[in-house]
Order: sequence, then structure tokens, then C-alpha cells
Amino acid sequence: MRAADWPSGWVLEKLAYAVRDAALFSSALTHRSVSGSNNERLEFLGDAVLNLLIAEQLYRDFPGASEGDLSRLRSRLVSGESLAQVAAALGLGEVLQLGSGELKTGGFRRKSILADALEALCGAIYLEGGLEAARGVVSALFSARIAALPAPESLKDAKTRLQEYVQAQGLALPTYAVERVEGAPHEHTFWVRCELGGLGRAAQGSGSTRRGAEQQAAARLLEELATSAAVKV
Amino acid sequence: MRAADWPSGWVLEKLAYAVRDAALFSSALTHRSVSGSNNERLEFLGDAVLNLLIAEQLYRDFPGASEGDLSRLRSRLVSGESLAQVAAALGLGEVLQLGSGELKTGGFRRKSILADALEALCGAIYLEGGLEAARGVVSALFSARIAALPAPESLKDAKTRLQEYVQAQGLALPTYAVERVEGAPHEHTFWVRCELGGLGRAAQGSGSTRRGAEQQAAARLLEELATSAAVKV
Repeated sequence: MRAADWPSGWVLEKLAYAVRDAALFSSALTHRSVSGSNNERLEFLGDAVLNLLIAEQLYRDFPGASEGDLSRLRSRLVSGESLAQVAAALGLGEVLQLGSGELKTGGFRRKSILADALEALCGAIYLEGGLEAARGVVSALFSARIAALPAPESLKDAKTRLQEYVQAQGLALPTYAVERVEGAPHEHTFWVRCELGGLGRAAQGSGSTRRGAEQQAAARLLEELATSAAVKV
Repeated sequence: MRAADWPSGWVLEKLAYAVRDAALFSSALTHRSVSGSNNERLEFLGDAVLNLLIAEQLYRDFPGASEGDLSRLRSRLVSGESLAQVAAALGLGEVLQLGSGELKTGGFRRKSILADALEALCGAIYLEGGLEAARGVVSALFSARIAALPAPESLKDAKTRLQEYVQAQGLALPTYAVERVEGAPHEHTFWVRCELGGLGRAAQGSGSTRRGAEQQAAARLLEELATSAAVKV
């Protein structure tokens, strides 16, 4: 798996970045299951680098988006799932150094390990090449994903959308009440009722957390409103 | 409160940064309670700028710190409380533009409003002056706080410290069990028992969340170990 010019050749080929300090990039591509220098600290730094570069790109690309919109868009791009997909597309798992335990259990395919290593690479590029070098790499890796982002509006959760709808209509805010809690502690199921006093409507939701039950109740109420009254919510 | 050369004069005096685009900094110092251009989007960007600059400084200043240590140190520096203190020391509340509602209720003293405005200023400086300009300002604002940081070890929570102690001693991991839950839903009090099988010791903790109760139980067990056995934990 590990070519003679690892990691410099791989980084140049995949990220178009010319490594100067091979030991730094070797650390970035080494999981903590290998004793000695690994990528944990670089991941801490790289996470912040990636967050800033994505934040800036979204700030510029979505001039009309609110802070909440920008946060939701960023979460989608830098989620563990998204980073793991980017890492997998690069074939990062094939050049990652893993301890024997992780190797046996297929750690090179584990999403969190791939996502962490991608962050660590961003950290290494930033440390060695500065913010502009990191920007070039991050921009190349994420531009297609940024272009494919949905409208910020569609990422809002149901409670937020319901609240904005009633505010726009000049109605009273929805109320949420826990109707009952079932099950043993830590296996609770919450049943929540969401009421729109102003419209005389209500819906129920359930979930393992109160928040989850509230979201389900709000989603059902939105659906009901959308179908029954032909309102756009 | 608002001098004729606001915001440029204030930013130059307090942050030693020479503003070029006064409108940008005017936005940074305007709370969302004022209609029109405000600091919400700049706060989103500035939060990421501050996070990266603090992360980098800690990465360099604490070469022996683990990723967990670095995260805990950063959390302490960029918490709302810490940012509000930095903002208050600058007198930021006196130059902040607030809507009349917030003015009446003393919003210029509210911690979250001060913290957000400080982040927005970092965002404005980064946008206009780049990362190095932002680094100079952030470094001046936070260097005393960074120098005064406690040893990373002391920031670990009780469960983490207890776990590391038993691992270092080659003992079995502590177990946590909820013994009972009292009170109505959402006003629960959890009672948790923490047991160290290997040492035949146990302690109880309570709290409004299971996690809080576990932390208290772990803290009590650590205390007991420290006093009874003269172990350093």
C-alpha cells in the first residue's frame, strides 16, 4: 500500500501540494493506533483550518444567507460523513498508517478515521504552506460540494420553519407540551403535542428525546398545513 | 457614546488596527436589534477566525498537549464568558449600536452580545486585513489569558481523570449505574452510583442530568481515593 515516495508523492498527486517536510505529512497520515507520532494534534489544528476556509467561502458565496443558514450549510460540508466521503474519493484509506488492531478490523474504511486524517492533512498544509496553500487544496476538494448545496432554507429544521411561518402570518408562536413519557430511564419515549393556537391546529410527535419528539410534531403540523391549506411553508 | 470618528477611531485606539472600510466595522459593532446591516454574519466568520488563531497558538505553545488537552484549553479561552470579559475590558459595550429595546434592558452589558460583537470584529479585521492582521489583534487580546492557562491536566473532568487513574493502575474501568430518578419529567434528579470493582470502592452522585450525576460520583470517588490512600489522582 505504501509507495516508496509516501507521503510526498501521494500528496502531490492527490492534492497538488508539494510537501517539504515529509515527517509532518507522515504524521498527518498516521492514526493514533500506531505508537509514536500520529495525527491527533494536527487534526485539532486542521479542523479549525477547514472550518475557517469553509466559513469564508460560504460567507462570500451566500451574501443573502443569515448566520443560521451559514451554520447549517457549513455543518453539512464539514460533517464526519461529508469529510469521510471526500477522503474516500481521494483513496486516503489506502495510504493511511494504522496499528495492527485497526488494520485487522478494517479501520482504513472507518469514517471517523478517514475524516480525522483529512483534517490532519489540512492542518499540515496550513502549518507548512500557510492559509493560502490550504485554501487552494480545500477549495479544490470542496468546490463541487459547495456548488451542489441545497437552498439554505431547506436545511432549516421543522421547529424553525414552523416558527418562521407563524411569525410571518402574525400568529401566536406554537406551543409544545410533553403529554407523556414512557419506558425505563434512558429508554424513554417522549410524546409531545404541538399546538398552533391561532389556527386551532395541533399534531403529536414522539421520539427518544424531547427535542426529537418536538421536531416530529412540528414536521407533522407543517405537513398538515401544507396539504390542507395549500400554504407554502 | 458614539464619537464622531466611530468606529475607526475606537478600533485604532483599542485594537491598534487601522480601519479602511468604516461601513464594515460599523456593521461589526451593530447588534441585530438594529434594523439594517448588523454583525450576525461577521460573527459567524469571526468565530472561525478566532477558533483557528487560538488553536494555532495553543498548538505551538503546548507541544506536549494531547488533542483533548488542546480542545479543553481552547474551550476555556473562547467560551462566551471569556470573550465577554475580553470585550468588557475593551469597553466594547460603550461603542456597540443596539436597538432601543436592547438599550432599555441594558443589552450593552449582556455577555452574549459582547462576545458576539468581539467575534464580529475579528471577522471584519480578517476580511479587510487578512489572517496576519487578525493574528496580531487576537494575540494582543488573548496573550495574558493564554499565559495564565492552568496545566492542561487540571481541566480534565472527573470521569476522565478517574478512568485514566484506573487504567494507569491496571484496574478494571469504573462502572456507572443509575440507581433512581426522582421528580417530574424535565425536573428529574438522577442518582448515580460509580463503582471501582478492582478496589472495592463506590461513591454516589446526583444531578439534573445523568452525566452531571456521573461526574459528581466520579469526583467523590477521586476525592476518597486521594484522601484515603494518599494516591495522586
